[in-house]
Amino acid sequence: MQVWNEYLEQNKQRFLNELFDLLRIPSVSADSQYKGDVAKCAEAVKQSMLQSGCDHAEICPTEGHPIVYGEKMVDANAPTVLVYGHYDVQPADPLELWTSGPFDPVVKDGKIYARGACDDKGQMFMHIKALEVMAKTNSLSCNIKFMIEGEEEVGSSNLGIFLEKNKEKLKADIVLVSDTSMISMEHPSLETGLRGLAYMEVEVTGPNRDLHSGVYGGAVQNPINALCKMIASCHDENNHITIPGFYDKVETLSDEQRKALNAAPFDLQEYKTDLSVGDVWGEKGYTTLERTGIRPTLDVNGIWGGYTGEGAKTVLPSKAFAKISMRLVPHQTSDEIAAMFQQYFEKNAPASVKVKVTAHHGGEPVVTPTDSIAYKAASKALSTAFGKDPIPTRGGGSIPIVALFESILGLKTVLMGFGLDNDNIHSPNEKYDVANYYKGIETIPYFHKYFAEMSK
Amino acid sequence: MQVWNEYLEQNKQRFLNELFDLLRIPSVSADSQYKGDVAKCAEAVKQSMLQSGCDHAEICPTEGHPIVYGEKMVDANAPTVLVYGHYDVQPADPLELWTSGPFDPVVKDGKIYARGACDDKGQMFMHIKALEVMAKTNSLSCNIKFMIEGEEEVGSSNLGIFLEKNKEKLKADIVLVSDTSMISMEHPSLETGLRGLAYMEVEVTGPNRDLHSGVYGGAVQNPINALCKMIASCHDENNHITIPGFYDKVETLSDEQRKALNAAPFDLQEYKTDLSVGDVWGEKGYTTLERTGIRPTLDVNGIWGGYTGEGAKTVLPSKAFAKISMRLVPHQTSDEIAAMFQQYFEKNAPASVKVKVTAHHGGEPVVTPTDSIAYKAASKALSTAFGKDPIPTRGGGSIPIVALFESILGLKTVLMGFGLDNDNIHSPNEKYDVANYYKGIETIPYFHKYFAEMSK
Repeated sequence: MQVWNEYLEQNKQRFLNELFDLLRIPSVSADSQYKGDVAKCAEAVKQSMLQSGCDHAEICPTEGHPIVYGEKMVDANAPTVLVYGHYDVQPADPLELWTSGPFDPVVKDGKIYARGACDDKGQMFMHIKALEVMAKTNSLSCNIKFMIEGEEEVGSSNLGIFLEKNKEKLKADIVLVSDTSMISMEHPSLETGLRGLAYMEVEVTGPNRDLHSGVYGGAVQNPINALCKMIASCHDENNHITIPGFYDKVETLSDEQRKALNAAPFDLQEYKTDLSVGDVWGEKGYTTLERTGIRPTLDVNGIWGGYTGEGAKTVLPSKAFAKISMRLVPHQTSDEIAAMFQQYFEKNAPASVKVKVTAHHGGEPVVTPTDSIAYKAASKALSTAFGKDPIPTRGGGSIPIVALFESILGLKTVLMGFGLDNDNIHSPNEKYDVANYYKGIETIPYFHKYFAEMSK
Repeated sequence: MQVWNEYLEQNKQRFLNELFDLLRIPSVSADSQYKGDVAKCAEAVKQSMLQSGCDHAEICPTEGHPIVYGEKMVDANAPTVLVYGHYDVQPADPLELWTSGPFDPVVKDGKIYARGACDDKGQMFMHIKALEVMAKTNSLSCNIKFMIEGEEEVGSSNLGIFLEKNKEKLKADIVLVSDTSMISMEHPSLETGLRGLAYMEVEVTGPNRDLHSGVYGGAVQNPINALCKMIASCHDENNHITIPGFYDKVETLSDEQRKALNAAPFDLQEYKTDLSVGDVWGEKGYTTLERTGIRPTLDVNGIWGGYTGEGAKTVLPSKAFAKISMRLVPHQTSDEIAAMFQQYFEKNAPASVKVKVTAHHGGEPVVTPTDSIAYKAASKALSTAFGKDPIPTRGGGSIPIVALFESILGLKTVLMGFGLDNDNIHSPNEKYDVANYYKGIETIPYFHKYFAEMSK
């Protein structure tokens, strides 16, 4: 709408500056040394809600990092949109690979570079600025509730409790989330599913102390060699995961569904070039889009053990560690898979080592309906803003909370993401295109408008 | 001899204090931040040589850490013993596992705890104190030359050059080394062989940047998973090493030789209990003593990649690294094995990753003759000091320099070690029994005496 575009045009630079202020706060939820910054970021989000038109906003403490809640009620009869997002970010390391400071945002070639630029401060903040656009132009059509958490990057372990305790306060008609990506500005898309997650840590103990690899080597099991063997055994020659029962509940898609999924524009050569890999890798019998969209995975996210310093040390270490996570698809459950993983690692441990497996956190996979009013409203909003209909896709990432909305609040979710797969989220030089940021702020009000109209 | 025992008895405490002064210097050769301490330690060794009776001692600079040379010439017609040892030590990490400071030596239950207590400051220093005992009691029977280096723990890369340049200065009849262990004080032993070493570093690169394991997981090869698979493939189900050609030159011992080797006192249950392992591990068809003595090995000494910090990070990392070393047995050569290893890792790398292999350093395996005058003199010296004949053993460790003595100086070596396998060398809480320290100082003069007599 004209008034929205004009208001956005007049306030573009300020909207960018305000996002930069948020990005400067190192709200790393995984690392306890940033606890104070996470709290500071929560306060900043609360203030921005009030300044943008919320009648009410508050910091809600949890056992972990706080949740920021805010609301703008316009009409008891109007539908209510619950906006979910998160203000916490992934750790920034390895720092040496950043071309500019992770918490010192800059714009280069039309892209905002900073940790959290896309995931999720940039996308979350679009909703707060969209509220401002609608509020200041007196064109709000839905009631809006914000629930912005600070523990998404560490498993949202306290959000479920918060939902249980605040069912009334969170009453809404739909959950709207911008924490995913679309294909491109030329090909807007809407995610119709997300993978779940089971994140494990494995500790392998060999001898009770570090040993000299000459004196004991060859006669005492090396825990690093043992761990590598166990990890290698998790995939067969076709890159299928070998953990017994792992695929039992995996949904088999129809040829039509797979065809639709593979219809999305995708250039394998471009993909390989962007990553500088000689070849892609994955489960035999599936395309790259299927491997990331509808198939489960097992990836080592971190491994360490023995001497990792400068030079050489001939040690046969006492311990070896690995952080291993699995992405899950519909019908697999985080707890079941975590239990299978634990049993597999403990069962396959030779008598010469001890294996301890602990579960970090999990999230359930979700599939969102495409025949709902909310999905249609989102689809129409994107069509209006981009001038073409969005393509339905399956996202490889996980937003554990989406499954909880359904189970605890009985609410469906619309995943309207404006990021791009090459935004380097969780990596050095995370970026978010300035154009996508503004496009999101432009699109969101249309969602509220159409959702209100279609709900009548 | 009476006079030696009396002198030792009168100076015991000072001999211990002087060793403590050496142990307090953190002469870690692998870590450049300790360069100054390594130099300081060299100077301290030089001073102790002069104070103990050397006519001459000097610091010999190299491309790396300096070599300390000292000599005490008694008679041009007497045989000359070249004593080799090293004053550098392994890194002390992991520091948190030490019960007392690694460079703050203490005596607990009759054991000296400190990095280098056994390997090799404690054993090297026995020879300097043994010189003092003989010099102060006017009972020197051989000329003595000391060559104490500062790079043994990092591959002695500059020692070969030093030998080439100083053949005249280093002229001798035998090399005497105390840098190995014996079975026990009840079972003195003499090493008749040492394993060689090939130490490699592997770098596996997947995508050109760290990726989100949800967005890309399952479709892009994870370099950690790839590295684990390559490492796992290095051993077959019988724990034989699978690198093509690896065993081609491995010497096959006769049943008699194996029988003699296994005759050494060894208690498997005690061994397992000491290490708190449920079972030993190793190459099928060989005993523990054979696995460490006459068979080659492949151990991962260190591995790292991805996120290793607190909490969880769902990253698909760009790179993974491992330090891998192989212990070699007679007829295998470090360069050949290093080349086979490199080819194996590079050949087996899938197109989805890049593998870079670099060689850190190597050393050749050695077998020392048991029919030489020097071996007999050492055997008699141990019999005299311990009251029983020493058992010939094969050591699992490596002293690369021993092979160089033969190839460059044409000298045989006697490995008269006084350490114990459970001295935790290269590990936290390295120790050396006070009794072994004194026993070494008591034994060494007998070697000089018998070697001079037998050489006549």
